[in-house]
Amino acid sequence: MCRWAAYLGPQLYLEDVIASPCHSLIAQSHDAHEAKTRTNGDGFGVAWYGERPEPGLYRDILPAWSDQNLKSLSRQIRSHLFLAHVRASTGGATSRTNCHPFVSGKWSFMHNGQIGHFDRLRRGLEAKLDDELYVQKLGSTDSELIFLLMLQYGLDRDPAQSLVETVNVITAEAERAGVPAFIRLTAAFSDGIQLYAVRYATDRFAPSLYTATLSPSSGLCVVSEPLDGEAENWMPVPPNSFVTVKNSKRIAIEPFMAQETSGPVLESA
Amino acid sequence: MCRWAAYLGPQLYLEDVIASPCHSLIAQSHDAHEAKTRTNGDGFGVAWYGERPEPGLYRDILPAWSDQNLKSLSRQIRSHLFLAHVRASTGGATSRTNCHPFVSGKWSFMHNGQIGHFDRLRRGLEAKLDDELYVQKLGSTDSELIFLLMLQYGLDRDPAQSLVETVNVITAEAERAGVPAFIRLTAAFSDGIQLYAVRYATDRFAPSLYTATLSPSSGLCVVSEPLDGEAENWMPVPPNSFVTVKNSKRIAIEPFMAQETSGPVLESA
Amino acid sequence: MCRWAAYLGPQLYLEDVIASPCHSLIAQSHDAHEAKTRTNGDGFGVAWYGERPEPGLYRDILPAWSDQNLKSLSRQIRSHLFLAHVRASTGGATSRTNCHPFVSGKWSFMHNGQIGHFDRLRRGLEAKLDDELYVQKLGSTDSELIFLLMLQYGLDRDPAQSLVETVNVITAEAERAGVPAFIRLTAAFSDGIQLYAVRYATDRFAPSLYTATLSPSSGLCVVSEPLDGEAENWMPVPPNSFVTVKNSKRIAIEPFMAQETSGPVLESA
Amino acid sequence: MCRWAAYLGPQLYLEDVIASPCHSLIAQSHDAHEAKTRTNGDGFGVAWYGERPEPGLYRDILPAWSDQNLKSLSRQIRSHLFLAHVRASTGGATSRTNCHPFVSGKWSFMHNGQIGHFDRLRRGLEAKLDDELYVQKLGSTDSELIFLLMLQYGLDRDPAQSLVETVNVITAEAERAGVPAFIRLTAAFSDGIQLYAVRYATDRFAPSLYTATLSPSSGLCVVSEPLDGEAENWMPVPPNSFVTVKNSKRIAIEPFMAQETSGPVLESA
Repeated sequence: MCRWAAYLGPQLYLEDVIASPCHSLIAQSHDAHEAKTRTNGDGFGVAWYGERPEPGLYRDILPAWSDQNLKSLSRQIRSHLFLAHVRASTGGATSRTNCHPFVSGKWSFMHNGQIGHFDRLRRGLEAKLDDELYVQKLGSTDSELIFLLMLQYGLDRDPAQSLVETVNVITAEAERAGVPAFIRLTAAFSDGIQLYAVRYATDRFAPSLYTATLSPSSGLCVVSEPLDGEAENWMPVPPNSFVTVKNSKRIAIEPFMAQETSGPVLESA
Repeated sequence: MCRWAAYLGPQLYLEDVIASPCHSLIAQSHDAHEAKTRTNGDGFGVAWYGERPEPGLYRDILPAWSDQNLKSLSRQIRSHLFLAHVRASTGGATSRTNCHPFVSGKWSFMHNGQIGHFDRLRRGLEAKLDDELYVQKLGSTDSELIFLLMLQYGLDRDPAQSLVETVNVITAEAERAGVPAFIRLTAAFSDGIQLYAVRYATDRFAPSLYTATLSPSSGLCVVSEPLDGEAENWMPVPPNSFVTVKNSKRIAIEPFMAQETSGPVLESA
Repeated sequence: MCRWAAYLGPQLYLEDVIASPCHSLIAQSHDAHEAKTRTNGDGFGVAWYGERPEPGLYRDILPAWSDQNLKSLSRQIRSHLFLAHVRASTGGATSRTNCHPFVSGKWSFMHNGQIGHFDRLRRGLEAKLDDELYVQKLGSTDSELIFLLMLQYGLDRDPAQSLVETVNVITAEAERAGVPAFIRLTAAFSDGIQLYAVRYATDRFAPSLYTATLSPSSGLCVVSEPLDGEAENWMPVPPNSFVTVKNSKRIAIEPFMAQETSGPVLESA
Repeated sequence: MCRWAAYLGPQLYLEDVIASPCHSLIAQSHDAHEAKTRTNGDGFGVAWYGERPEPGLYRDILPAWSDQNLKSLSRQIRSHLFLAHVRASTGGATSRTNCHPFVSGKWSFMHNGQIGHFDRLRRGLEAKLDDELYVQKLGSTDSELIFLLMLQYGLDRDPAQSLVETVNVITAEAERAGVPAFIRLTAAFSDGIQLYAVRYATDRFAPSLYTATLSPSSGLCVVSEPLDGEAENWMPVPPNSFVTVKNSKRIAIEPFMAQETSGPVLESA
């Protein structure tokens, strides 16, 4: 179980999310509260959007708390839209290619959760990828594969639907392989314009997801657990939700993978 | 193009091959003579056989010349059979999982060369692997895949034949993909008992391969280029040869992938 | 606060101490029980004695729990005498040169604890070193400097006395600098023949130290906290003690830095 | 012998200097032409000035040519003033703390060259530092110490003079230690406003130094060797010169450490 935070709004130094709040992402790398594992020391990464369509990417295998480069970069780089992640491996090796976020063209993606029985499903799922996506796979994590499947199933056209199809394909592959379908998925991703997030699980234990405004003048944060101790400021996102942060003030939360999808259930402005 | 050295014979400190000769493997990491690239600074690795059936493995991403751990380990560890490798990437990322040797059970494998158009062939070749081999793939190199294909095609039963089939499968996949088959392959591998090597290419430029006895009392070395300046001590292995180092005194060199395989052409004792 | 374990006795695979017991050193890197910090993820190291007078040394900056090299090395290497350490930095950067054990000639040393106000004392303490010791300093930790001071004050002649003088020099330097003397020191060190340890603090909170026999046929372990859950097997060493493991069955525990040193208080055989 | 490049002028993506020209700094990390060592694979670093008075700093121990983070960062970060360095160690360990540039407050510094007999002089030179500078020393290189000595001798007040005094102190310390004074020094440094460089040696072999305008609209580069093949664009700086890049069009080159300093010898606008 990893920890992550994403931001959309007026330009902010990365450190305002990664390093500065009392329960910042770096603090969570050392001692998370709502994660299955307290320590998230198996690497970290940050993807941020600047003046180019594609994001910048800095990932490394040290624990976030001890990386001096991360400290310096997050003090210098300002961005209106970024994703940051600290990793607790559920199996894959600690290598840069297994660290989140993953990036392809203008898209970035990061994840907390897992695909159950991944060893049994990996091969069948990789076979769904077109050649040009297949060769983009550099690591061995289920997270990277979820991202590539979303690209395969139309992330560019319809982000929510591409994720629905990805979940369906994983479920079908589990059935084919004769193992129970088991997915826990709390992810954030962006095309450089909007910020998306999802909270979903096939069982009742979807990993936590919260949103908040960091300060009156700041934009919106979506996080796996609150960045400060003021719990009342952080709105929990219900399980099985798809979140679209449209701009620094406006967020839409829709049901995800419900029996009948009936449109937005909650829109805050 | 990488550089490597392998040894079978009476126990030797690893440093006697890796660090000590005037043109040692560490020296070649900084300045190789017969390689396409002079610098082999994209990681290194060593696999050695000790008291267990499976080999020990130490790989890292620093250049071999600056790794203090390698210096200390190779001063302490003695082995009768080991493989050592310095890497010059032809594309894959610099990560431990992309460094040679690769290990599976009792087998170890390392390689200098490449599969042409690998991006076009990778997917079809990976599909040849059984599930239990498929999930062993941790990196993204053609070298690791060659090793897994050899395991797939009977490395345990008949090492030379498993490599013949691997080459044939790569060639067939190239044909299927509509690209010219292009393989350059100088590899060494071992099951902990014998040491095998191959020198092969689909064109006239098979990467170099030599054998020699390091000293009157030592065993046999197989290397991608001589470890010292005394060229007359090093016997070049002809292109398209399969080498079996049977013990510290005896080596068999057979034709590999010839039109008709007519048995050993050279056996030195 | 770091965690460490040292062993003297019949040859053992390193993994029997580092990886195998239920609360092994690798397990403690992720979740220590008696340390001020639960996570010891700022690098690790192992020094072991083999066939040479000087020890082998493997140190790296990843958390011990995720280092595949450590897993493989500790499965292959057997030793009758070794020191292993997982680090939780109290300030210094995460670099190999700041990881324990430190090695000089035949000596190895590792440490849990700290010198208070080290920034104010460092310069004066370094000035005590002879030129040839001064240039051996590669990192910036108080631990490395304690080791070099012990070498300066006769570690080769009288290990306990060299440590007494080191403590006295640190105390005097604190007085000179106008800061309260504050030392917490639980260390192990060896010359390749005997294994020494110390538990000491200037206040009442000397970091914990235990000894035990791992199994009826094994030798003696000295550790910062027990390696398994069977607390009754582990004998706590009293504060302000100097421990000499003479062989796999015999250990002497003497008072350290007491008002009057009155010889061994406890010798178990 | 390392390679480096520094820039002052209208904002430029770092990659325009680090990665893009045909003989870019990354290309030089693999194959330098005018350096004593062709390979500069012992780490790299970049310091850049943005919206804060102190520079950002990214340093790592991989060869620059294989670091994906460096590629991404240098594509995203734009700066009007930056220093970039690829390292070939002349002795010190490969660690982040030994990589250039070094940073202290608003100042950044990088270096190609060496102090002869540094092991004999290091201790005496470190003793010249005030306490607050002494504790800033994190690594073990002569380069970091030169930078700290410059800070000690008034870098803030008079950059050229602080370097004169540093050279004099090193020379005096060599005399005191009974070794010949031997300094080769080609360095660049900045306070975030102006860019300074020096080319100096106690013998006739001061490491090379060049300046050029990258393009009609760009600012000024100061480099250890030209970034492209068009040698005629690159003006060699004479040995024993102190360079001040005042703005993107104006550079002053004065004699450095000459018998009588007679003011600017060359000013180009």
